[in-house]
Amino acid sequence: MDCKKLTSLHLQLPSYDQYDIVRLVMETKIDTVNDGTATSPQGFHAGATAAEIKQGSGDKQDLGILFSQEPCVTAGLFTTNRIKSAPVLLCQERLKKGRAVAVVVNSGCANASTGKQGLADAAEMATLTAKALGIDTEEVLVASTGVIGQRLPMERIRDGLNHVSLSDNGGQDLARAMMTTDTVPKETAVAVSAEGLRFTIGGVAKGSGMIHPNLGTLLCFLTTDAAVEPHFLQEALHRSADVSFNMVSIDGDTSPSDTLLLLANGMAGNPPISSGSQAAELFQQALNRVCIHLAKAVARDGEGATKLLEVAVNGAASKADAALAARTIVSSPLWKAAVYGRDPNWGRVVAALGRSGAEVIENSLDLHIGDVLVLKCGIPQSYDEAGVVRVLEKDEVPVTLNLNLGTASATAWGCDLTEKYVTINSQYTT
Amino acid sequence: MDCKKLTSLHLQLPSYDQYDIVRLVMETKIDTVNDGTATSPQGFHAGATAAEIKQGSGDKQDLGILFSQEPCVTAGLFTTNRIKSAPVLLCQERLKKGRAVAVVVNSGCANASTGKQGLADAAEMATLTAKALGIDTEEVLVASTGVIGQRLPMERIRDGLNHVSLSDNGGQDLARAMMTTDTVPKETAVAVSAEGLRFTIGGVAKGSGMIHPNLGTLLCFLTTDAAVEPHFLQEALHRSADVSFNMVSIDGDTSPSDTLLLLANGMAGNPPISSGSQAAELFQQALNRVCIHLAKAVARDGEGATKLLEVAVNGAASKADAALAARTIVSSPLWKAAVYGRDPNWGRVVAALGRSGAEVIENSLDLHIGDVLVLKCGIPQSYDEAGVVRVLEKDEVPVTLNLNLGTASATAWGCDLTEKYVTINSQYTT
Repeated sequence: MDCKKLTSLHLQLPSYDQYDIVRLVMETKIDTVNDGTATSPQGFHAGATAAEIKQGSGDKQDLGILFSQEPCVTAGLFTTNRIKSAPVLLCQERLKKGRAVAVVVNSGCANASTGKQGLADAAEMATLTAKALGIDTEEVLVASTGVIGQRLPMERIRDGLNHVSLSDNGGQDLARAMMTTDTVPKETAVAVSAEGLRFTIGGVAKGSGMIHPNLGTLLCFLTTDAAVEPHFLQEALHRSADVSFNMVSIDGDTSPSDTLLLLANGMAGNPPISSGSQAAELFQQALNRVCIHLAKAVARDGEGATKLLEVAVNGAASKADAALAARTIVSSPLWKAAVYGRDPNWGRVVAALGRSGAEVIENSLDLHIGDVLVLKCGIPQSYDEAGVVRVLEKDEVPVTLNLNLGTASATAWGCDLTEKYVTINSQYTT
Repeated sequence: MDCKKLTSLHLQLPSYDQYDIVRLVMETKIDTVNDGTATSPQGFHAGATAAEIKQGSGDKQDLGILFSQEPCVTAGLFTTNRIKSAPVLLCQERLKKGRAVAVVVNSGCANASTGKQGLADAAEMATLTAKALGIDTEEVLVASTGVIGQRLPMERIRDGLNHVSLSDNGGQDLARAMMTTDTVPKETAVAVSAEGLRFTIGGVAKGSGMIHPNLGTLLCFLTTDAAVEPHFLQEALHRSADVSFNMVSIDGDTSPSDTLLLLANGMAGNPPISSGSQAAELFQQALNRVCIHLAKAVARDGEGATKLLEVAVNGAASKADAALAARTIVSSPLWKAAVYGRDPNWGRVVAALGRSGAEVIENSLDLHIGDVLVLKCGIPQSYDEAGVVRVLEKDEVPVTLNLNLGTASATAWGCDLTEKYVTINSQYTT
């Protein structure tokens, strides 16, 4: 990579706060990869097997491995829940070195609230994986998702790990092995090309329930073949999480297992990308795109969901206020249920905004449901109720608020609340 | 009242933090009044009518008045939602004087997010009531509950107010007129007698949805014939709210309309009760009892609920931590859904505790579901799963946590999450 050439792009590059991709004139492209996944970047391999970790799960894949040919500079963000799963504690310890080669993951059991035995089981899972791959156990990270408070069925994991075969298009199997109540796998990749710089970023995620991430999400593994300086990698992951996974809520319950990893193996051969460079801005843009794609996929596939909800808050006094307001509204069970029922009860949006803690002045407030203006300067407008119902009937339901107090904006995503969410969660372990 | 005689009771009186009533030997009794309601204390009258405020509501009572023969020292607590309904703004203004004679209330329309027109409508509702009662409009408080963002149908309210007739047992009609999706009216009263002191405290409340009160609850009017010094009345109401309404959650959505009023008309003839006295302790105990009764009634009748959930947190590092932990757990949609489905998925209690923000050390934590110990020092125990299911099958499902970090305790109440909650809230305005 020629950093001098990239310098000329400076004025055309968008700020970190924007997430839409700007195609820089000629020099730079960020393209979505067809069937993109965590193994789209060079040198990443993955595979999965059906280990029947949750009894009776039959031939559902539930145990997977992600592996890089070359050791990876690795960044991670984890749940802020004070009860952390054993795999989270293991990852946090191992990531002090900032390097990893593989991740082993299972669904069906979260290995959380399992005490010392849980820590020993997570460590053994890493050791077995290391042996199978011929690498050091310290280079293996672990993630588990499923029921809390139950021990991992180690016999089945030991046996299962013997049946995982890796391939350079195994990301799709990996995405499936992570699923719990998810109905679709979540995966994507983008290819970035600029003069002197070509790399790919991919990822797989799972979501569905107990989703209200705070510094992480319920299992997402991102990969890139770009060479990236460790400090910037962590910084970039944090920035991307703040506009993607940290802006998603399905049910307000933050999981003890939230784990967001980003592995960079450097096989693209570029000089390591470091903070403040043009390449760094490009990397951030591409990473934002991958993270937002996966975050929206998680929101859309919330337990029992039929719709994606999007709440954009503009004109807030601060970025923190904008994010707080957007996320509170998208989390409101009452607004979620109203959207599900196509009930144009927009007063619930206002009520949730008001309780969010964000600075709000009622008579400054504008509210659009889709493109229908229902509230202007805090005063209800005459509007076409059928027009609002038409917005609510779509698969994606956008709401836009302008607080008219400043210039900060944020967007959050969630899903509607349906009877099926209740049904799923009233029968989870039984 | 002879305060000197009451002094002798000092050592037998429980602290404010306890809410169970202690029957003081001989001298003091707090008895539940049969069919007790807001008109049980002397001098309070109430009545209601069906004004069809929500179109098509037919002969459902939806407009009511509470009136005291004598002017009342009055305390109030209101929503902390930054969007406040017009009636809340009106009450806050009028309560600066700390006095009221009447409250007019309607269901079917919240008169919230209605701008200046809403304020004018609330003021007119007070003025019409004042005229009908022959009192000053400044002595009338207003409360409204129902759909947000719609104007009050003032014609129907004007007409309706001509049809409200008051009686000294009208509290039961008043409780019904406040109901929205409530399935049962919530009302109670206790009679207090001690040497030289006899008074009654009563109240009516409504709840059901958008219930996560913070300094108030969605409409509760408390009455007493005790004479009470204004400063202490406000202080006592705040204390009682903190162990009752502020410990209830149905869906995490704090309403713009939350209003908790306490009217004291002094007709019991006692010297005004003031802070720090024995009579004050007795008053606080009785008020706690009334508030906790009504708060639990609100929780039990949450929208779609089939069960009352109780979460007791002991051994917390601080009172604030205990309250935060208890209320977060009782609000967890995942635990609420698990209880509904009799699914012994207690890991969700631990996950909610961990995200609450309260100080928690995993290996200090004990958890009982009913009387079944499932977690001791953070380690899952062998326990009878059928025994846990039996606990979950009951109408009231208690959970007890001991954080083993300090001595603070708190109890919170909520309800299970059912498909019916979703059904109700997907069809609220349509």
